[in-house]
Amino acid sequence: MRVDLFATAQEIPGTDWLAGRTAVVIDALRATSTITTALHCGARAVVPFLTPEEAKEAARSLPEGRYLLGGERHAVRIPGFHLGNSPLEYGREEVAGREILFTTTNGTRAIQAAAGASALCVASFLNAPAVARKLAESGRDVVICCAGTEGTFSLEDTACGGAVLLELERLGVTLSLNDLGWVALELYRSYRGREAELLARSEHGRRLIGLGLEADLGYCAQVGVINAVPVLRDGRLVI
Amino acid sequence: MRVDLFATAQEIPGTDWLAGRTAVVIDALRATSTITTALHCGARAVVPFLTPEEAKEAARSLPEGRYLLGGERHAVRIPGFHLGNSPLEYGREEVAGREILFTTTNGTRAIQAAAGASALCVASFLNAPAVARKLAESGRDVVICCAGTEGTFSLEDTACGGAVLLELERLGVTLSLNDLGWVALELYRSYRGREAELLARSEHGRRLIGLGLEADLGYCAQVGVINAVPVLRDGRLVI
Repeated sequence: MRVDLFATAQEIPGTDWLAGRTAVVIDALRATSTITTALHCGARAVVPFLTPEEAKEAARSLPEGRYLLGGERHAVRIPGFHLGNSPLEYGREEVAGREILFTTTNGTRAIQAAAGASALCVASFLNAPAVARKLAESGRDVVICCAGTEGTFSLEDTACGGAVLLELERLGVTLSLNDLGWVALELYRSYRGREAELLARSEHGRRLIGLGLEADLGYCAQVGVINAVPVLRDGRLVI
Repeated sequence: MRVDLFATAQEIPGTDWLAGRTAVVIDALRATSTITTALHCGARAVVPFLTPEEAKEAARSLPEGRYLLGGERHAVRIPGFHLGNSPLEYGREEVAGREILFTTTNGTRAIQAAAGASALCVASFLNAPAVARKLAESGRDVVICCAGTEGTFSLEDTACGGAVLLELERLGVTLSLNDLGWVALELYRSYRGREAELLARSEHGRRLIGLGLEADLGYCAQVGVINAVPVLRDGRLVI
């Protein structure tokens, strides 16, 4: 199986190139951890939007109580939104049966950039083994699109891509990797079991700790605790 | 010392950001290995150009015998040029006393992109320890600009950046690194002494091997065999 891993959505060669591939979008701190958690906890769908305005516009056509507005800018909840971007806010009591209209700085942009792929799913450490099983079953070539942080490489997303790759290897899949995919796999092989340490060492992780969000890091560092694999269908993430 | 490592020239935040920093440009396979070798072997200067046409234009104002046109497109010597991009072509008999008018696909572009830095030098495995000593002496913050391959991450450049960082660490410099800098250091720490293996594993290395250029990889994988540090002065690389 050919797997290309890109550090940011900007590096994806283009929509034609995506056709025939499965895209795996990763924003481990915190968007894709939050999406995975929300759907695991019974949200009907998570609908990604590029801007807060687009999310609010979509909310106007939905009955009160049917939806929640969620997301962040600069790691902080958007004014007028019900929820921020902490997965710990997306428990069953909050989200079950509701649609989450969702926008974040890097994560939703990466989802939009990869939407031209033949299939798109969302990964975090939480569901990395489940994502790998799904990829192995499909057998299709894969592009792992890390969200990155403000257009640059991020440690946590690349390591999480490595977690998916290591799991594919353990499932017996023979991998053909681009350079960054190989580095991601090597990195995760060295740091497996020390995910919390990696997250706390990343630039984005340190910023979140500075904002008092250390509990989010601990949550997002858990590997394989959720079996749900969010997939994009008609612009909505569902399981 | 703050050190930011970027996988490609496109990721550099901009000229303002470069001011006050030393830029280290790396295209380990093969442009910066070739530049380092040429200057070590007595070339008067290596003058980087973005295009073959610009290099040829500059040649018109120089007396015959004073200069050599060198460089590649798609890893192959440019028609009408004296030399390609193999460091093994740049021996003392060829280059001593001459100016090399030089253009390559990724390397010269990275040099141009980083030219706004307060100082710019060129690194390869060959001179990585010498580059680190120079950086440690200056004490200025550093940006390591990998050339990458066609706008994407390359294993060999990142690992070479890691070699510079490990040497800085061994010199007792306390490093503050961005995420990719940290990954580069960890990667090189794991693969130190196995540089040839790393180069042969990289996508670009495999392409060169396919073109029969395996000897270039063996040469470029040697660490610390040259003490010369090429620096950019008035658009010319000199030592």
